[in-house]
Amino acid sequence: MPIPAAAIDALQALLGDRFSQAQAERDLHGQSETFHRARPPDAVAFPVSTADVSGIMAICHAQGVPVIGWGTGTSLEGHALAPHGGLVVDLMRMDRVLDIRAEDLQASVQPGVTREALNTELRATGLFFPVDPGANASLGGMAATRASGTTAVRYGTMRDNVLALEVVLADGRVIRTGTRAAKSSAGYDLTGLFVGSEGTLGIITELTLRLHGQPEETAAAVCAFATLEAAVECVTATIQSGIPMARIEFIDADVVRAFNAATGTQMHIGPHLMVEFHGSPASVAADAQAFGALAQDFGGTGFDWATTPEARAALWKMRHNAYRSCLALRPGATAVVTDVCVPMSHLPEAVAEAARDIRAEGLLGPMVGHVGDGNFHSQILVMPGNDAEMAAAKRVAIRMAERALSVGGTITGEHGVGIGKRGLMRAQHGDAVDVMAAIKAALDPQGIMNPGKMLPG
Amino acid sequence: MPIPAAAIDALQALLGDRFSQAQAERDLHGQSETFHRARPPDAVAFPVSTADVSGIMAICHAQGVPVIGWGTGTSLEGHALAPHGGLVVDLMRMDRVLDIRAEDLQASVQPGVTREALNTELRATGLFFPVDPGANASLGGMAATRASGTTAVRYGTMRDNVLALEVVLADGRVIRTGTRAAKSSAGYDLTGLFVGSEGTLGIITELTLRLHGQPEETAAAVCAFATLEAAVECVTATIQSGIPMARIEFIDADVVRAFNAATGTQMHIGPHLMVEFHGSPASVAADAQAFGALAQDFGGTGFDWATTPEARAALWKMRHNAYRSCLALRPGATAVVTDVCVPMSHLPEAVAEAARDIRAEGLLGPMVGHVGDGNFHSQILVMPGNDAEMAAAKRVAIRMAERALSVGGTITGEHGVGIGKRGLMRAQHGDAVDVMAAIKAALDPQGIMNPGKMLPG
Repeated sequence: MPIPAAAIDALQALLGDRFSQAQAERDLHGQSETFHRARPPDAVAFPVSTADVSGIMAICHAQGVPVIGWGTGTSLEGHALAPHGGLVVDLMRMDRVLDIRAEDLQASVQPGVTREALNTELRATGLFFPVDPGANASLGGMAATRASGTTAVRYGTMRDNVLALEVVLADGRVIRTGTRAAKSSAGYDLTGLFVGSEGTLGIITELTLRLHGQPEETAAAVCAFATLEAAVECVTATIQSGIPMARIEFIDADVVRAFNAATGTQMHIGPHLMVEFHGSPASVAADAQAFGALAQDFGGTGFDWATTPEARAALWKMRHNAYRSCLALRPGATAVVTDVCVPMSHLPEAVAEAARDIRAEGLLGPMVGHVGDGNFHSQILVMPGNDAEMAAAKRVAIRMAERALSVGGTITGEHGVGIGKRGLMRAQHGDAVDVMAAIKAALDPQGIMNPGKMLPG
Repeated sequence: MPIPAAAIDALQALLGDRFSQAQAERDLHGQSETFHRARPPDAVAFPVSTADVSGIMAICHAQGVPVIGWGTGTSLEGHALAPHGGLVVDLMRMDRVLDIRAEDLQASVQPGVTREALNTELRATGLFFPVDPGANASLGGMAATRASGTTAVRYGTMRDNVLALEVVLADGRVIRTGTRAAKSSAGYDLTGLFVGSEGTLGIITELTLRLHGQPEETAAAVCAFATLEAAVECVTATIQSGIPMARIEFIDADVVRAFNAATGTQMHIGPHLMVEFHGSPASVAADAQAFGALAQDFGGTGFDWATTPEARAALWKMRHNAYRSCLALRPGATAVVTDVCVPMSHLPEAVAEAARDIRAEGLLGPMVGHVGDGNFHSQILVMPGNDAEMAAAKRVAIRMAERALSVGGTITGEHGVGIGKRGLMRAQHGDAVDVMAAIKAALDPQGIMNPGKMLPG
């Protein structure tokens, strides 16, 4: 159903040239990083203030127009697509860092600030915002998908690092959740409810974030392992031993091939761990030594320490570009990206079974993982139009999810549900899905907030 | 309204002698630790299984009977009182530790397990459950009130340490929330919604908890300060400097008097900090030294290190008994307990203003605080029946809450809302209270779950 003319008129009156029905804008805001596809939205809005967003929602609520939030467009499960048409609300012009309260280790930002932009602003304060999903995503989008990434093992996910929100509800009302205090027991945790709600309950228009002190000392390294199993068992042992890792990332041989091709490195083709330690010079040295000894027990070799800030930056840039580098392993391919997370003790078996399954289906699926959390991904490369290959990739993804559930894990550690995992929600949550649906109905009775996402139909 | 005869009959048929209308049981389950008072409940149930709880809820839902969860009865805001009558569900016979998965740093427990009972079970594993509100509370009750306490500065609150729940909903349906994975992005964070919901959305019948490694080394100390301001400014400086504290507690001169009277210690009468460090021997030594140097800058003196486990146990037992020791400062008194939490930079001023206000009203209100979180309490001692004193204590409490809100803090850091802080909920949350009410109405349409608590009437 197209947007009613009355809504178009009202949105134009409200937003002027911050409202567009141009095909180019619609197409730009109808894309997806992965294989998910949908029709483009009917129009795009570019609010610059909470008042704009509130006005947009009031109009769309009155006229029953679907509303889809948009950040950097880097979500992996089709979160920002418009399968039911409607209005995409592009929040990237709300990109101001509103307030840095260094003495309280907090910053307040608009949703269109990216994590790199915030960290650039913070550089002089000695503080940083640690959550790092790889992509230079918007902080609003990261909150909406409950993002995490390479540093969650040390600093937590968006769940742990968002203290407070301003949210525009489906009908245009503006609320504030949370406080600037470190903790609160005053009523339902609405901040926690909106973090990870994928734009299905409201639009985030301001975030109060926890900041952390830049570590006095940082050390990073890669090391190689003979087998995938040995690398992952080393991770499990490391976490169980309590060595405080700032990052501990697994990459398999295919990812190393992609890195060598993309960056000209000459890493040994085989499974590796990429690790980082944060702390005082003494504690970093002790932690690195303890990890080195453990890694040796599992046959880890060829430690390559990134001793300069530039070398570390290059190392993590390579890791952050893994998605694009792996896509380049098969020119023209798109990706089915898996994202299971399991209890630590089940990680070695979960990774090994996934690798076997990918091989058995004859697929190419490079694997990376934030394995300190028990979270790993396969990026299964499929050629658009090859239905058999796509079907095989989806079978593998579903079996990985089912195996994760069978050991008490989750179908998505950090990417969210979007369109891609709706069909698995009841398998994970059982009747708790009905509780989610009841909350959704209570806050968005018309179902205009990002319809067709997260909750099963 | 008494419980309808049909509900009585059904509950008796379901529970047999696990259902009681005896006056003694009703009186026992109608008490409160603090000044809050209400009529006793009409009956008490003693479920031993989730099936029992589900059956109870189905009956009470059908007959419109209020249901109030009960643990150890140690909540401070009248959470477990029955102002509208109805059925108290005493969960203390559901007291089994179901499963300890040391390799995943997790345990699953029934709600009636107390934190001390769990830690006794864990002793041989090298792990412990850190959340420590002082009272030996039930873990179900601690989750329901989003408890925290002395160790939250290091290990977080119940929000951070509950991974998954089993919950019986208002109509008797049983759901499971969360997973055993370290993180998940699969839908709304229902675990986070039920933690802190004070029994107003459902009854918790099982918890999956995060465990932590017992620290290799522990060091604890008390030290004295010349003024309250100096002690609290030392805390703010310590937190801002990033010294990793396991505990950092403030006690004022009245609390020291209470300790000396209760335990025979001969501490100098004046403000003190009680601190603890966890880590490797090297890191604990370095942290203790760094704190010692900082404390000296603020005039801290008379460091008394508890070097043996017995001395540490005695130290924290004294702290844990502060509530009862302070009550004994004024025999016969009951307490109005405040619980604000503010951003760190506002802590010194918040504590000083509270102390001035208590003095100006001519009240006795010993102060303690989990000041590493910006959270502090005054336990204002009032004589039952002295209406003027009670009114003065409530005025002080409301002004403390209002001042906390004016600097972005919260009316309750860890005690919860219960009966006592309902009137302040709209001041803190504004229209977000309506969102809470909508969620409540969606999950408990008849309003039978702990009515008269948390949400303003």
